[in-house]
Amino acid sequence: MRRRTASTAEFNAIPAHVYPLTLRRETAGEHRGEVTIGGVPITEIAETFGTPAFVMDEEDFRTRCRRLAKAFGGGHFVHYASKAFLSKTVARWAMEEGLSLDVASLGELQVALAAGFPAERITVHGNNKSPEFLRLAVSEGAELIVVDSLQEIETLSTVAGELGKSQDVLVRVTPGVHVDTHEFIATSHEDQKFGFSLASGAAHHAAMACHAADGVRLRGLHCHVGSQVFEASGFALAAERLLGLWKQLLDSTATLSDAPTSLDTLDLGGGYGIAYMPDQEALDVEEVASELKSKVRKAAEAAGVPEPKLNVEPGRAIAGPSMITLYRVGTVKDVEVAEGMTRRYISVDGGMSDNIRPALYQAEYDCRVANREVDGELLPTRIVGSHCESGDVLVNDALVPEDVRPGDLLMIGATGAYCYAMASRYNMMTRPPVVRVAAGEARLMIRRETIDDVLALEE
Amino acid sequence: MRRRTASTAEFNAIPAHVYPLTLRRETAGEHRGEVTIGGVPITEIAETFGTPAFVMDEEDFRTRCRRLAKAFGGGHFVHYASKAFLSKTVARWAMEEGLSLDVASLGELQVALAAGFPAERITVHGNNKSPEFLRLAVSEGAELIVVDSLQEIETLSTVAGELGKSQDVLVRVTPGVHVDTHEFIATSHEDQKFGFSLASGAAHHAAMACHAADGVRLRGLHCHVGSQVFEASGFALAAERLLGLWKQLLDSTATLSDAPTSLDTLDLGGGYGIAYMPDQEALDVEEVASELKSKVRKAAEAAGVPEPKLNVEPGRAIAGPSMITLYRVGTVKDVEVAEGMTRRYISVDGGMSDNIRPALYQAEYDCRVANREVDGELLPTRIVGSHCESGDVLVNDALVPEDVRPGDLLMIGATGAYCYAMASRYNMMTRPPVVRVAAGEARLMIRRETIDDVLALEE
Repeated sequence: MRRRTASTAEFNAIPAHVYPLTLRRETAGEHRGEVTIGGVPITEIAETFGTPAFVMDEEDFRTRCRRLAKAFGGGHFVHYASKAFLSKTVARWAMEEGLSLDVASLGELQVALAAGFPAERITVHGNNKSPEFLRLAVSEGAELIVVDSLQEIETLSTVAGELGKSQDVLVRVTPGVHVDTHEFIATSHEDQKFGFSLASGAAHHAAMACHAADGVRLRGLHCHVGSQVFEASGFALAAERLLGLWKQLLDSTATLSDAPTSLDTLDLGGGYGIAYMPDQEALDVEEVASELKSKVRKAAEAAGVPEPKLNVEPGRAIAGPSMITLYRVGTVKDVEVAEGMTRRYISVDGGMSDNIRPALYQAEYDCRVANREVDGELLPTRIVGSHCESGDVLVNDALVPEDVRPGDLLMIGATGAYCYAMASRYNMMTRPPVVRVAAGEARLMIRRETIDDVLALEE
Repeated sequence: MRRRTASTAEFNAIPAHVYPLTLRRETAGEHRGEVTIGGVPITEIAETFGTPAFVMDEEDFRTRCRRLAKAFGGGHFVHYASKAFLSKTVARWAMEEGLSLDVASLGELQVALAAGFPAERITVHGNNKSPEFLRLAVSEGAELIVVDSLQEIETLSTVAGELGKSQDVLVRVTPGVHVDTHEFIATSHEDQKFGFSLASGAAHHAAMACHAADGVRLRGLHCHVGSQVFEASGFALAAERLLGLWKQLLDSTATLSDAPTSLDTLDLGGGYGIAYMPDQEALDVEEVASELKSKVRKAAEAAGVPEPKLNVEPGRAIAGPSMITLYRVGTVKDVEVAEGMTRRYISVDGGMSDNIRPALYQAEYDCRVANREVDGELLPTRIVGSHCESGDVLVNDALVPEDVRPGDLLMIGATGAYCYAMASRYNMMTRPPVVRVAAGEARLMIRRETIDDVLALEE
């Protein structure tokens, strides 16, 4: 059971671990009571860019990049999973912080390249990579392609041959380890579209197929155990299982003339949990890094194989907490939901088009009033969007002070991952802008879409 | 339990009630075995416009408009709910067929007006209409605005006053009737963002507030009981409940000098079920129209009030079956999901970005091979997209012939409603085009988005 807000004072206090690094409620001066982010008053952002708007804290994003790079012994080992949120700007931020980049589609690769991200620091994912996608990746010199089917290994070999190149690859393995927040389950078989099963022997077979394919160089193994993970144990078990296969591969190929001395990389994917709600604590990345490195070292020793390089792929853990979504309150309505029981519905000027995650994953979010301190009694409240759908809910059940009124600015925290990236134009509500803030300045990163953008697509 | 495909022959046979009117598999001639739609071979559409692509059958769309108009005694009573799928083209089709139009946002109203749809046939919805939205609706002369909060009635009165206009309205009522497919539940209170509760007296209060407000003319009551409804009974009960309120209103206002003789419209919303799967049958619109009209007549008689005009708001029932999504098969992979049990995963070049409904609502869809007849044995198969997410599933569990191979064209039926409308650019997979077909000709309705469209938004 989620711990609920205990008082109006607690509602006014911003939980620092849920909101961006530089966001705070001013306690003095001209903007007393108001939230500022990157030194910019929130009312100024709303005034300049309108609402709804995503607001991204550059310092937060960069700080997370640095912290992960340090924890894992170098930015090169930390691949920002761009599917969480990608723009040319954030690709450059990740690049400047020395990180590598993951892309999972032709489009993501194109945006990364347009940003000037060096291909030799890009890892390429996807269960259904088209020949065109593989061709661009190989010709640009992508560092690693994570192969996901025998069909892909064949196509990649052909593409590499046509381009006269050799491509380094990892094999995506399904190790039978699934992590859901604090618990993991270990199975043998897996029923999913990604990867090659460890248990069935498919992963071994795929690795040998890479080893045998012209123009393809096997560099290691990859797995991904889950999302919003708060414990290192599942990663550690997956690493152990993968290193078992690793040893098998070295053994089986030792009998061949060309043993894969190229085998040097273990990629344990992403899924590092962040705090969406005040009573959550993000996964401690220093702790998990040190535990994983030690586990991998020990597992490698136990398996009698050289210790591999350890890559990780955080997306949400970098972009998630660096953004808020800023809405303006519209309709405030009290609905009698049972005899004598009332729920307040606060409608805002966005909704499931800019954040599908509550409807899609029953995701929970925290919300606060951003333009002022409120002082009313706490009421059971649902924050809803403006879409013509009753499931258009942003915060299902919160305690919100009763004096929130039309025109107030409401902010929702930790919306940096999978919100803008999955945004639609449902009900012709076009995408909000993404505003970047740093050092007292707010600038557009991505402009607001308009109905003219929609109409321009029509012949 | 869903009835499963029994044979490869059944897989090749197109279930006419799930797919667009003019779609068929050719049995002779140059394109024998191939699917054509609007007289255009599917391979030609794929060649010209690429995949994935939405393909919309104009004749299907128009035929459904006409059938509904006839069933309900005139196109004016049938409001196409544009949130299902809106473009200038389909707005014009609905207009030419004499239908009215529903919009649920400023953007939908703007697109409808850009298409030249007459405002006097537009009904305006929304739980959180901004003053700007209301201003445009009133100034353009929207036929009806469905008011959803006391706050809105006040704002609307102000806006109408500023514009020197009078605005006709309906009051959105929550009658405590919820229909889910074949069953309805009747409650008293409702816990949702839309409308005014009948049971609590809020609906009566709101209607009286409209009656009292300057510049606002109460024309009737509105309700919406659910989606994908297959029985008339829930609509009938809602009508009965609303007419109870109607009588109350006439009684209570009879004591005032200005009784609302303007009260003349009952809008029972949409939600008419369509067949997504072969073993489903769409709601019989003639049957439901005749039943509803008779029920409303009797309920009005019983309540001793003049029989109201009956408006309905089908969206899915018009646009849904008129479209297919055309994909190209990429990776075909057999995954051992348990000892000796295999599931085939067929990846296509779209996914949850062009159809979020399976992930969001566990919606089921039918799929067929479109470019040829297949002849392999049926295999348990999952159709998945190309997104970097294991929940990216289009068809969760189908029996599909084993000879489907990379390069084949796969079509999914009944994707006209809430697919393009809710499409995102997740993983930078930009929106597919919408191709319109009629009388042997295929033309672009909406062009494919490109990465340049994405990059153009960035400063």
